[in-house]
Amino acid sequence: MRRIRLTIAYDGTAFCGFQVQPDARTVEGELNRALSELTGENITVIGASRTDSGVHALGNIAVFDTESTIPAERFPFALLSFLPEDMKVTEGCEVPLSWHPRKQDCIKTYEYVYSCGRLEDPKSRLYAAFYESDPDIDKMCEAAGYLVGEHDFTSFANPSSQILKEGGSAVRTIYSIALREDGRTAGNENRTIRLSITGNGFLYNMVRIIAGTLMNVGTGRWTPEKVAEALSALDRTKAGPTAQARGLTLVSIRYIEGKEGSCEAKD
Amino acid sequence: MRRIRLTIAYDGTAFCGFQVQPDARTVEGELNRALSELTGENITVIGASRTDSGVHALGNIAVFDTESTIPAERFPFALLSFLPEDMKVTEGCEVPLSWHPRKQDCIKTYEYVYSCGRLEDPKSRLYAAFYESDPDIDKMCEAAGYLVGEHDFTSFANPSSQILKEGGSAVRTIYSIALREDGRTAGNENRTIRLSITGNGFLYNMVRIIAGTLMNVGTGRWTPEKVAEALSALDRTKAGPTAQARGLTLVSIRYIEGKEGSCEAKD
Repeated sequence: MRRIRLTIAYDGTAFCGFQVQPDARTVEGELNRALSELTGENITVIGASRTDSGVHALGNIAVFDTESTIPAERFPFALLSFLPEDMKVTEGCEVPLSWHPRKQDCIKTYEYVYSCGRLEDPKSRLYAAFYESDPDIDKMCEAAGYLVGEHDFTSFANPSSQILKEGGSAVRTIYSIALREDGRTAGNENRTIRLSITGNGFLYNMVRIIAGTLMNVGTGRWTPEKVAEALSALDRTKAGPTAQARGLTLVSIRYIEGKEGSCEAKD
Repeated sequence: MRRIRLTIAYDGTAFCGFQVQPDARTVEGELNRALSELTGENITVIGASRTDSGVHALGNIAVFDTESTIPAERFPFALLSFLPEDMKVTEGCEVPLSWHPRKQDCIKTYEYVYSCGRLEDPKSRLYAAFYESDPDIDKMCEAAGYLVGEHDFTSFANPSSQILKEGGSAVRTIYSIALREDGRTAGNENRTIRLSITGNGFLYNMVRIIAGTLMNVGTGRWTPEKVAEALSALDRTKAGPTAQARGLTLVSIRYIEGKEGSCEAKD
């Protein structure tokens, strides 16, 4: 028996999130089906991040156990004809049988894309959240500065979070938040602004609540200082709105560990 | 009676092209329905460019005649609740009743987007054509140079073109072809290359055949000089393949005329 670790990219638009649900199309469900068809075994993956409905990924991680002799690095190509076109496995490697993608220290990077202007561009609507505004990025950066570091992010978590309900800690470390604007492309009046956020873990809806709160600052409705107040209030009602799922992409998960379980040739 | 000119943006993915067809969802069909519902009249638009199935637009143009008293510039907002989310009217203005969007000299700009790498990114699949390659942009630019200027583009037109079948001229002028590469975004290994092409008119499938032919050069299968030979052959079979519709966007149509019929406040 071998444990194989896969890196997964998907367009979240047509998925009801990662986690298997009865009668709903999910990333995990499609992955289980494709791997079972490929190997002839009854495969159930364990995912690293259970992204929400509509959230995209470039680098989510999942593992599964198999008797198959397919070389681990061949899974991306072997799976091509078994997976739907809104989903790709981009890497495969073998990890120890004890390796669990949610029980290792890791660094996660998310990107949130805002499209800002007078009217939404139909071609941006699936992968960016539209704001009828002309936001001040410098102010958003200033506000983001209050969130970087180790904090109790209770104000920036959905209170229905399983971890919080079970009394778990809301303390997380954000290593960096960066905002940058794409160059304009011909004929497109809208501004595309990318929020990139890296940390050691994120509570339920945390990135989307940060994205929604920073846009409150960008539009001038909030001062940057109000974000610091929201953070210290430890009260979800003091932070801004949860930004739409469509703007969010889980970019990468990097595991902090020795050689064991690591299959990133790059970096 | 007034003639109103609209600028239209759409995601072509779920449309069977611009032109009305029985039992198929088309841009023109949705526009006719939305305008008829809004005005209570029986509206039929005249479009400038009958884009193919799957081709996108940021700035297609259509006109219609109405007794409605809605100010022309209000149509984008008035139509918002009548149009599906993959389509937006972005500008409206009044033009003379004699103004026809296909009977005026104009300058059209198209953009073709290639996504190049080892595996397709699911989030790019609707708006870019994927190539499993690492193309040489300099070579593509060199080849593009042969196409700029006034030429007979018979080799770069679908022979089923109505204009050609009726014995019309295949001479067109390309003012510019530019290629540029997007900066890399975190976690995405693929290269996004944008081909921007401006001319006084394009034959059926011409931009897509140019895009497919230039990629032949980018991948090294063709020398740049072979594009010059294909052009002078006046034979469709001598040019490269027609690139996929999904990569193409009609960016803008600018009319060359006096004040009459022009409603571009910008420029």
